[in-house]
Parts: sequence; structure tokens; C-alpha cells
Amino acid sequence: MNHQIQSYLIKEEPFYRASGDEVELFEAAYALRTPMILKGPTGCGKTRFMEAMAWRLKRPLITLACNEDMTASDLVGRYLLDAEGTVWKDGPLTLAARHGAICYLDEVVEARQDTLVVIHPLTDDRRILPLDKRGELIHAHPDFQLVMSYNPGYQSAAKDLKQSTKQRFGALDFQYPEATAEAEIVSHESGCDDDTAARLVGIAHRSRALRGRGLEEGISTRMLIRAASLIAGGIAPLAACRLAMTKPLTDDDDLLRALDGFIDAHFR
Amino acid sequence: MNHQIQSYLIKEEPFYRASGDEVELFEAAYALRTPMILKGPTGCGKTRFMEAMAWRLKRPLITLACNEDMTASDLVGRYLLDAEGTVWKDGPLTLAARHGAICYLDEVVEARQDTLVVIHPLTDDRRILPLDKRGELIHAHPDFQLVMSYNPGYQSAAKDLKQSTKQRFGALDFQYPEATAEAEIVSHESGCDDDTAARLVGIAHRSRALRGRGLEEGISTRMLIRAASLIAGGIAPLAACRLAMTKPLTDDDDLLRALDGFIDAHFR
Amino acid sequence: MNHQIQSYLIKEEPFYRASGDEVELFEAAYALRTPMILKGPTGCGKTRFMEAMAWRLKRPLITLACNEDMTASDLVGRYLLDAEGTVWKDGPLTLAARHGAICYLDEVVEARQDTLVVIHPLTDDRRILPLDKRGELIHAHPDFQLVMSYNPGYQSAAKDLKQSTKQRFGALDFQYPEATAEAEIVSHESGCDDDTAARLVGIAHRSRALRGRGLEEGISTRMLIRAASLIAGGIAPLAACRLAMTKPLTDDDDLLRALDGFIDAHFR
Amino acid sequence: MNHQIQSYLIKEEPFYRASGDEVELFEAAYALRTPMILKGPTGCGKTRFMEAMAWRLKRPLITLACNEDMTASDLVGRYLLDAEGTVWKDGPLTLAARHGAICYLDEVVEARQDTLVVIHPLTDDRRILPLDKRGELIHAHPDFQLVMSYNPGYQSAAKDLKQSTKQRFGALDFQYPEATAEAEIVSHESGCDDDTAARLVGIAHRSRALRGRGLEEGISTRMLIRAASLIAGGIAPLAACRLAMTKPLTDDDDLLRALDGFIDAHFR
Amino acid sequence: MNHQIQSYLIKEEPFYRASGDEVELFEAAYALRTPMILKGPTGCGKTRFMEAMAWRLKRPLITLACNEDMTASDLVGRYLLDAEGTVWKDGPLTLAARHGAICYLDEVVEARQDTLVVIHPLTDDRRILPLDKRGELIHAHPDFQLVMSYNPGYQSAAKDLKQSTKQRFGALDFQYPEATAEAEIVSHESGCDDDTAARLVGIAHRSRALRGRGLEEGISTRMLIRAASLIAGGIAPLAACRLAMTKPLTDDDDLLRALDGFIDAHFR
Amino acid sequence: MNHQIQSYLIKEEPFYRASGDEVELFEAAYALRTPMILKGPTGCGKTRFMEAMAWRLKRPLITLACNEDMTASDLVGRYLLDAEGTVWKDGPLTLAARHGAICYLDEVVEARQDTLVVIHPLTDDRRILPLDKRGELIHAHPDFQLVMSYNPGYQSAAKDLKQSTKQRFGALDFQYPEATAEAEIVSHESGCDDDTAARLVGIAHRSRALRGRGLEEGISTRMLIRAASLIAGGIAPLAACRLAMTKPLTDDDDLLRALDGFIDAHFR
Repeated sequence: MNHQIQSYLIKEEPFYRASGDEVELFEAAYALRTPMILKGPTGCGKTRFMEAMAWRLKRPLITLACNEDMTASDLVGRYLLDAEGTVWKDGPLTLAARHGAICYLDEVVEARQDTLVVIHPLTDDRRILPLDKRGELIHAHPDFQLVMSYNPGYQSAAKDLKQSTKQRFGALDFQYPEATAEAEIVSHESGCDDDTAARLVGIAHRSRALRGRGLEEGISTRMLIRAASLIAGGIAPLAACRLAMTKPLTDDDDLLRALDGFIDAHFR
Repeated sequence: MNHQIQSYLIKEEPFYRASGDEVELFEAAYALRTPMILKGPTGCGKTRFMEAMAWRLKRPLITLACNEDMTASDLVGRYLLDAEGTVWKDGPLTLAARHGAICYLDEVVEARQDTLVVIHPLTDDRRILPLDKRGELIHAHPDFQLVMSYNPGYQSAAKDLKQSTKQRFGALDFQYPEATAEAEIVSHESGCDDDTAARLVGIAHRSRALRGRGLEEGISTRMLIRAASLIAGGIAPLAACRLAMTKPLTDDDDLLRALDGFIDAHFR
Repeated sequence: MNHQIQSYLIKEEPFYRASGDEVELFEAAYALRTPMILKGPTGCGKTRFMEAMAWRLKRPLITLACNEDMTASDLVGRYLLDAEGTVWKDGPLTLAARHGAICYLDEVVEARQDTLVVIHPLTDDRRILPLDKRGELIHAHPDFQLVMSYNPGYQSAAKDLKQSTKQRFGALDFQYPEATAEAEIVSHESGCDDDTAARLVGIAHRSRALRGRGLEEGISTRMLIRAASLIAGGIAPLAACRLAMTKPLTDDDDLLRALDGFIDAHFR
Repeated sequence: MNHQIQSYLIKEEPFYRASGDEVELFEAAYALRTPMILKGPTGCGKTRFMEAMAWRLKRPLITLACNEDMTASDLVGRYLLDAEGTVWKDGPLTLAARHGAICYLDEVVEARQDTLVVIHPLTDDRRILPLDKRGELIHAHPDFQLVMSYNPGYQSAAKDLKQSTKQRFGALDFQYPEATAEAEIVSHESGCDDDTAARLVGIAHRSRALRGRGLEEGISTRMLIRAASLIAGGIAPLAACRLAMTKPLTDDDDLLRALDGFIDAHFR
Repeated sequence: MNHQIQSYLIKEEPFYRASGDEVELFEAAYALRTPMILKGPTGCGKTRFMEAMAWRLKRPLITLACNEDMTASDLVGRYLLDAEGTVWKDGPLTLAARHGAICYLDEVVEARQDTLVVIHPLTDDRRILPLDKRGELIHAHPDFQLVMSYNPGYQSAAKDLKQSTKQRFGALDFQYPEATAEAEIVSHESGCDDDTAARLVGIAHRSRALRGRGLEEGISTRMLIRAASLIAGGIAPLAACRLAMTKPLTDDDDLLRALDGFIDAHFR
Repeated sequence: MNHQIQSYLIKEEPFYRASGDEVELFEAAYALRTPMILKGPTGCGKTRFMEAMAWRLKRPLITLACNEDMTASDLVGRYLLDAEGTVWKDGPLTLAARHGAICYLDEVVEARQDTLVVIHPLTDDRRILPLDKRGELIHAHPDFQLVMSYNPGYQSAAKDLKQSTKQRFGALDFQYPEATAEAEIVSHESGCDDDTAARLVGIAHRSRALRGRGLEEGISTRMLIRAASLIAGGIAPLAACRLAMTKPLTDDDDLLRALDGFIDAHFR
């Protein structure tokens, strides 16, 4: 394993609390090198799961946060000008394919679907990556795997993956952890006490019920951890919840009042 | 045959099970160097057929996954900056035309139709490719052929090929293989037993009947092979089918329930 | 005549069967160096006519397939980076204007109308081409002529030539040849027998009657030649006609059935 | 006067037949260096008038056919890469302003109105041109004048000049010459006899009456000259008129029949 | 004051006839270095006022005519390629901020509002300009001031300044001068007699009453000066007024007739 | 701390008058390195608060005014051409992450939401910034914090932050200070007397009540300070208020009259 790729190895075991058979299924998929899609809401732990799997599988993890400006060159690489003329610079996908890393495309529906067409030859049994601009044909390293994530709740027709892309992947669903598990994660990550964690999870559950009724998205596990950390650091629960959970979530006064009511109800 | 082009030769005979006279017709078309279109749904075997034909015809196969960002330069080539100034770099189409490969434009309706106009002079009896930026006029190698593929099911008015392009091509239709053949392919490629393969094909058939009634596309042969491989590797059929077949296909809860019903019915 | 331009001379007399006084009229227009538009459907022989005229007039023919990405620089030229700095590279229009070739802009309505404004000073009695980026003013070679083609059947309001462009050109209409002539061309070009050629022309005539009633365009002479060549090479007429004529024309099942009916009727 | 600018001097007196006091008015405007707009239909002689005035005023004439892709850099100049680094290259407007030429922007409504903002400081009493990219402030040569032309018949709201641009210019109207003058011009330019010229002008007058009733524009003086030249060269009047006048004007069968009727009526 | 910036000093006192307390107010605003907006119709004297103020304040005046293509780099500067690599080139805003000039953004609503965001840190009490691409933070010279102008009559919702931009500026209104003052300006600038000036102003007043009733804008002071100059140079009033005032203003025949009536009424 | 980053330290304590517990909450958030959003109307003191916090925390403050043209490269950096080839230049976000500054993205809703995706890995517990183009993975300096601001009053659906972005931040609300505090700020910053400050605040309050009833935004604290400074400098209150408060706010005559009424009422 070359030096550059080694820096993508996960150094310490990430804290991940499985909620079902997702670890076994992912390992089976990796054994077949099936390209995978992780589906689930923002902040529910998809990225953490990916880190935990990379650590278990002892593979470097190259993560790419997708965006609409991302071109095929951002994935595969490009020529850069150097003192001796142009030199080729592998992009993250090429780097992963060449050296056997897991390439993780986060929030993949943000990417232009046409850009994603470049991954197709890597996802069927050919497992090749043609670098057209370089005239090179890469046969993927045996350890290489491609993983993508997206939030099905946001998807609009305009931002859905193409069938010809989807059909090349296996998929796993992720949800927020059930209440006890989520409270355990919140107290583990923030250092707050169990009672505070349970109250925060209670607020989150009520906010998630508002989803689609004004709120685009409920309070995520990540937000709970932030609020819990502030409380553990001495900030009053109401101020901490507002700063870390409700103010970022919405600018709507009615919704903010409703969310404040949930906080009051749990921290009275 | 020069070194670069040789790397595009197919090394081993690809497994391809003909479902009609498509092999003979393609050979006749190649004998006349007729440019060809392969029409058919995602994952039904068009790319595999093309590989099999390239192997039979002993021609290098240069495949290009089309996308909307693809410019004429991505097809024909461009000047790159080098230590001694600019050097010309043949694109995949030019490479194929110059050295006598088969150039395969996969998912061609993704390409901007205007970009495709550059292929016109290669597809009539002139068989030339003017490299305007280079001031060079390439007369195609006698072995050169141009092949394109698309999925007629996806085509919208905005993404249809222009008549002036279509009329320059011959065309062959592809479908999913009939049930026995498909099961044979599934067990051959995945190593699963014949009974499992038959059940999976049964699920696929029912899913394909939902096409246009919520499902954009049914379960493809490629997906069946993935699920079969997981089952052969010890994963329970329901989990394997969900991971490899239904979860990637749709995010709609009702459809997922219907598809789960098909799986239950076949693996009860 | 310099070396580069000489490679654009037509080496052998192209087979062209005149259907009226188009050859004489074009020669008169060339004598006055009137810029010309060739109007007519896809595959009816406009490009072949242009080649035949270039051969008769003994002028090099520089053909440019127009597309929407074509910029003025693609027509007139650009600076390229070289070991000694930037060097100017004539575009095809400049090359033709400088050295006295016929410049043929194929499918000109595909080009952005604004790009075409650069041809204006070449099409009135000034016959100049200002290379603004180079600060050079080219007076066209006395033998230079500009010719453009388009298919009036496709024209939408968005893709019509501007009046200020059209008024600078003379125009000639092209149609598919009448039946006997078309059959003669088909058998001459494909090597098929006269009876097969006549049957194929019969199918084409019936398909052309469907134009505007589902079919965007009828079967062209070029398609007939392809089908005839396959039949001459031993392929059964039905398979040959489907591959070369009907499958490329449409994806609509009803239309395909109707076209199959025409084939049956003529090859029963 | 430097060498490059001298090549823009008109060598021979252009044939121009004044139809009113336009020559005197333009001379008065030039004496005040008032920037001018020439308004009138396609092919009525605006460019010829401009050439005649440049010849009378003994000023170089730098003509720029405007288009939508034209950027401010195309007008004022840009840095180009050279063996010794970047060198500045004056654009046509800068060239004219620096050395005292007349800069003629043909079909100015094609240009993006925002691009035209760069001409503002040259058109008020400051007569300066700031080259922002170069950090240079050019004070226009005392002989410099700016002239633009457009066709008011085409103008849409989207392609009208901005008031802040228009108010900086004086304006002159141009029309097709009246019948006798137009016939005189046609016979002078084409070498045809007076009778033929009069008939052709008659056809043009009837076509111009169709303007707005199907025809976007009538037959221009330029088209008459082309048809007259073909007739003088031995082509039959009907064929010559079709090639040079009616076929380029429209693709509509009904209109073509009407125009053919006019030709018949005048050449019976 | 460095050499380049000195060339932006106004050499001679510009003729400016104040119509209220605008001079005193601007001086007070400059004393506080308040960024200013000058609002008023085209050709009413905003630019002339700015020149007069720059002359009074003895500050160099760097004027930038805004347009939609203007990027932040056009304002702040960019890297250019040189024999020794890339060198930074200050844009006009940076030049003014660094050396203490007044930077005048003319017709600022033409600029993309997002581009204007770069001026924000210069317009609050920080008075800084971060050159992100260069990693340099410029503290504005104590003499630097930013001034912008626009015509409120043209503003559409799409082309209004953002509140967050507007709130950073003070503003002064400009109108056409009242009748006696305007006539005085017209005769002073054109050299025409007082009676002619008064008549021209009379025509302008009637045209301005048509604003919003067909005319987008009335006849400006600048147009009156042009017509007066032509008359002073011997052109007949009707011809002079048409050339310099009415023809540039509109292409509408009815409006032109109405405007001709005004000219007749005043020069009968 | 390296030299470049040191220039971003705030030299003198900024004047900031807290209106609640925002200082303590921000310090608690910084202690956890929680990324923060500051919400509030234009000119209410968000930027000043940020400067005051940076001064308190003794961290360099790198401010970036966001705009729609801002690309990911403007945030993270790019390769620039140098005498020895290309050299990497850190963007402001990278600079802050590498050296431990606070990176403040002002008016963040102006940025393209897709561009902001690059900040995601910096805002969860990974605190990394992958420089894909450089192939470098930056682990943020322990002192680094990310802060963004926006005005919730302007937000449209098209310009709202994505949930997946928002959920990564804590948030604090800002409002205009209450009357006494605002008057104190106005007199402190402008040097005007207390009575004038109170009157100006009175006008502002009435203008803010018009928000949403014609006025897009009320008069901000910043505008009050400008008007107060002019009055302290000897300008009459009416003229000062018009120049600094009402004229910049709107071009609507009715609204201007209403605002003039408020001024009269307070300075009678």
C-alpha cells in the first residue's frame, strides 16, 4: 500500500452501535465487491457506519462529498501543469480503484447524474475505469469497492439517481436508532448523564413527528449530541437545545414555538 | 496494431448466450461496416454482447460511457500542454478510427445530440473524421466500426437521437432473456443452484410487470446475479433480495412492500 | 495550392445521378461565387452532390458538420500554445477562404445563429474575413465559395437561420430521387439486383407517406442502400430491412408493426 | 498612421447612390464626432453607405459583425501568451480609438447589451476608453468615430438597445431605394439590362408587401443583384429568381407559390 | 501618489452647474468617507457631477462602467501570466482602495448583485478589501471613497440592488436641470444661441411628459447638446433634431410622428 | 502562528454592547468547537459581534463575503501557475482550518448550496478537509471554528440552506438592539448628542414597522450611525436623514414621502 493511500486508513475503531444485521450484510456485499448504496436521513449515522466498516475491513476510506459542480475530472483526475509540462493527477475515484481503497460518495444525489456515468464500468463485472483523457484503462484493484449514500427523504424527480446507475448497486436502509440506543449514543458521545440523554431523545422523537408538517427534517442524533455536550458543559438545557437543535432547524416562528414547547415539556 | 490499442482487445471469451440471430446479423453488419445501434433495457446484456462480438471479430473494443458533459473534444481528442508545447492527444473515437477498433458509445442518449454530430462523416460512405482543431482529415481504418447503445424505455423527446443521426445506423433489439435462459445465466454467473435461480427469475418477471405502474424499470438480469451470489455466499434469500434487488430499485414504501410480497411468494 | 489544402481534393469522381438542372445552376452560382444553401431531407444526397460538384469544379472541399457548441473560433481559428509561445491556427473557414476551397457547412441550422454572423463579410461583395483576434483582414481567394445545407423539415422557430443570413445566399432544393432513379442508385451502390432495389424503394415510398403521421422522417436512400447491401450479402430481406431501415427509424411498436407490414407486402 | 490600421483604408470609391441628404448629415455628425446609428432593413445598403463615407472622409474603417458571444474583450482586446509572457493585443474598438479609425459595429442588436456598456465612455464628451485589464486609459484619437447599425424590423424587447446606450448616439434611417434608383443599382452592379432590372424590382416590391403577412422580410436589393447576375450569365429568369430570391427567403410552400406567381407575372 | 493612479486625476475643472445643495452634501459625505449612490435618469449629469467633485476634492477618479459579465476579478484584480510566472494585477477597485482614489461604479444595477458583494467589507467601518485569491488583506487608503450610480427608472425586480448592499450607502437624487439652467448648459456646451437652446429644451420637456406613455425615456440634456451643436454647425433644426434626438430615441412610427410635431411646434 | 494568519488578528477591542447571553453561549459553543450560524437582519451587528468574539477568544478571523459565483476552489484553494510550475495556494477556509483561525462566511445564503457541501467534513466530529485536487487530507487545527451568517428575512426557498448543512451547526438569533441600547451605540459611534440619537432611533422604529408593507427592510443601526455622523458634522437633520437613511432604502415616491413624514415628526 503506497504512502498517500495509507493516510486514508482509519486509525482508531469508531464508536458504532449496530441496530440490525447491517454489518454482516455489508461484509457479505464487500466479499462480492458489490457496489453499495447507504440510504437514510441526515445525521443518522451513515458516515459513521462507513468508517466503522472501513476499520473492520482494514481498507483505506476515501470520502468525497458530492456537489453539483463536481465534474467527471473531479472524480477520475486531471492533467496539471508542472515545471516539466503536464502531469497526470489521479482523482479520488482513480486513487481508490488503483490502490484498493473503499471510495465513498457522500450525498450522491447532489452530483450531476451525468457525472456519475463514469462510475458505471467500475460497477459491473468488468470493474474497469477508462481514463479517456489519459488513454489509460485501469483494472480495479481486487480490494476496491464503491459506496454511495443519499437521503431518500430529499429526493425530487430532478435529483433522483438514474435507473441505469441504481441497478448497478446493492442497498442498505438506515434509520435513526431506536430510543434506548439513541440515548446511549448521545450520552457516550457527549458525556452527559443518562437522564438528560433520555429527555433529549424524547424531544427529538416529537420533532420527527412534525416532519412533512412544516419541518423538512426532524432533530438528528448529531444535534442531540451537540445539545447534550453544551448541557454537560454547564449551559442551561433550554438555551442549549435552542442553540444546538431548534434554531438551526427552522426560521419559522410558529414551528420554533412548538419546538420550544417540546423542550419545556421534557426539561420542566 | 500499436501497443495502446492492443490493451483494448478482449483477453478471454465472454460468456454470452444468444437469444436469436443477433450474432449473425451483427457479423453481417460488421462485414459491411454498417454503424450499429443496440437498443434494450438496462442490464439486459448489451455490453456483454458487444464484448462477445469484439472477441469473435478479434477487434479491440473502445467503450465510452456517454454523459451530458461530453464534448466533441472528449470524442475526437484535444491539445494538451507538454514540456515541448502543445501535443495532440487522440480521443477514443479517433483512436478507434485510426487503428481499426470498434468504438462503443454506451448510453448514447445521455450525450448532447449536437456533440454526436461529429460522428456523421464516419457513418456514411466517406468514413472520414475531420479533426478541425488539428487540420487533419482521418480516413477510417478498414476494420473500424461504430456501435452505440441506448434504452428506448427512458427516452424522452428531449433525449431522443436526431433523425439525421439515427438514419446513419442499423439497429438490433435486445430484451431480457426468456426465463430458462435467464436462470441459466444467473446460476452460471453466480454459482447458485438452479432452483434458486429459477425463483429469482420468477421474482424478476413479476417486477417487470410493474414497469410503468410505479416502477420505472423492472429487476434486471444483473441484479438477479448479485442476489444469487449473496445467497450462494450464505445470506438469507429475503435479505439478499432486498439488498441486491428491491432496495436499489425504489424508495417508495408501497412498491417495496409489493416487491417483498413477490420475494415471500417465491422463497416461502 | 499548398499541401494541407490539397488533401481536401476529391480523388475519384463520386457517383451522382442528377435529377434536374441542379448541376448547371450550381455551376452558374459558382461562376458568380454566390454563396449557396442546399435544402432537403436527411440522406437524400446533398453531401454527395456537394462532393460531385467539388470534383467537377476541381476545388478542394472542406466540410464542417455544424453543432451547437461550435464557436466562431471553431470556424475562423484560434491561438494555440507552442514551444515558442502562441501560434495562430487557421480554422476550416479561414483555410478555405485563404486558399480557395469550397467550405461546406453541413446541417447549418444546428449551429448557433450568432456564430454564423462571422460568415457575413464573406458573403457580400466585400468577400473579406476579419480575424479580429489576430488583427488580420483576409480577402477571400478568388476560387473560394461558401455552401451550407439544412433540412427544412426539422426547422423550428428556434433553429431557423436569420433573415440577415439567408438573404446572403442562393438556394437549391433537393428531394429523394423519383422511383426509377432511386432504384438505380440503390442497386448501383449496394450491388443488389434490380428487383430487390425496386421492392425496397416501394417500401420507402410507403414509409415517406407516414411522415408527419407518427414518423418524423421516412426511410432515406441511404437506408435503402444499407438494407440492399445486407440482402446482397445473404441476409434475409425481412431481417435486413428491420436492421437497416425500420429499427433505427422508430421505437414505437405500432409504427414498427406498420413498417413490418410494408416489408411483408413487398417481399412476400 | 501605422501599418496595421492602414490596411483598413478603403482603396477604391464604392458605388453608392444617395437617396437623400444622408451624406451631408453624416459629414456634419462626423465633424462633431457624434457617434451614429444606421437603422434599416437587411441588404438595403447600410454597409455600402458606411464604406462610401469612410472613403469620402479618408478614414480607415474597422467593421465588426456583432454576435451574442462577443465579450467586452473581443471589443477592447486581451492578453495573449507569448514567448516572453503575456502581451496585450488591442481589440478592434481599441485599435480604432487609438489610431483614429471609424469603428463600425454591424448588427449591433445581436451583441449582448451588457457588452456594449464598454463603449459608453467613448460616446460622451470624455471620449475615453478604460482598459481595465491593462490599467490603461485611452483618450480617443481626434479622428475616431463610432458607428453602429441595426434592423429595427427585427427588434424584439429582448434585443433592443438600452436607452442609456441609444441616447449616446445620433441616428439615420435607411430604406430600400425607390424603384428607379434601385433598378439603376441592380443593373450597374450585375451588368443586366435595364428591362430585366425593372422587372426584378417589380417582383421585390410585391414581395415587400408580404412582409408581416408570412414573410419575415421582403426581397432585398442584394438578392436582386444576385438574380440579375445569374440572368446576365445566361440562366433563365425563373430559375435565377428562384435560386437567388425566393428559395433562400422561405421554406413555406404557399409563400413560395405566391412568390413564383410574382416572377411569372413579371417575366411572362 | 504613484504614477499609474495620477493619470486618473481630472486635469481641468469640468463645467458643472449645481441645482441644489448636492455639492455640499457630497463633500460632507466624503469627509466621513460615506460610500454614495447617485440616482437619476440617463444623461442628466451624474457622471459630470462626479468629475466635478473629483476635481474639487483633488482625488483621482477611477470609473468603471458596470456590465453583467463583470466578475469579482474584474473589480479586485487577477493573476496574469508573465515571463517569470504569474503576477498579480490590481483591478480598479483595488487600485482605488490601495492608493486613495474615488472609485465610481457607473450603472451599477447592470452588475450582477453577487459580484457586488465584494465591496461590502469596504463600505462598513472596517474599510478592508480581502483579496482572497492573493491571501492579502488591504486596509483602504484614508482618501478612498466608493460611489455608484444607477437610473431608478429602469430598475426591475431582477435588477435592483440588494438591501444588504443599499444599506451600506448614502444616496443623492439627480434630475434634469430646470428649464433655464438646462438651456444655459445647452448653449454653453454646444455654442448655439440662447433662443435655439430654449426651443430645444421646450421639445425635451414635452418628450419627457411622454415617458411611460410609449417612450421609455425622454430626450436627455446630452441629446439636446448634440442637436444644438449640429444646428450651430449649419444643419437645419428639423434634420438636426431628428438625427440627434428623435431617431435614436424610438423606432415606433407613431411616437416619431408625435415627436416631429413637437419639433415643428418649436421651430416653426 | 505563521505570519500570514497573524494579519487576521483583531488589533483593538471592537465596541460591542451585548443584548443578552449571546457572548456566553458563543464561548460555550467555541469551547466545543461547534460550528455556528448567526441569524439576523442586515446591519444589526452580526459582523461586529463576530469581531468582538474573535478579539475575546484571541483567534484570527478570516471573513469571506459569500456570492453566487463562489466555487469550492474559492473556499479551499487552487493551483496557480508559477515560474517553477503550478503551486498550491490555500483558500481562506483551508488557511483557517490549517492554522486555527475562525472562518466567518458572511451572507452564506448567497453562496451556491452545492459549494457549501465542501464544509461538511469540517463540521462533524471528523473535522477534516479533503483537498481532492491536491490529494491532501487536512485535519483541522484544534482552534479552528466555522461560523456563518445569514438574514432569515430574505430567504426564499431557492436560497435556503440545505437541511444536511443546517443540521451541522448551532445557531444564535440577532435583532436590532432595544431603543436605549441602540441610541447609546449611535451616539458612541457617531459622536452625536444623546437627543439626536434618540430621535434617529425613533425614526428607525417607525420605518421597521413598514417592513413587509412596501419596505423590504427597515432602517438599520448602521444607517442611523451614518446620519448621526453627518448631523454631528453640521448637516441639517432632514438632509442628513435623507442622504443616509431614506434615499438608499427605496426609490418609491410614496414610501419616501412616508419616511420624510417620520423625519419631520422627530426633528420638528
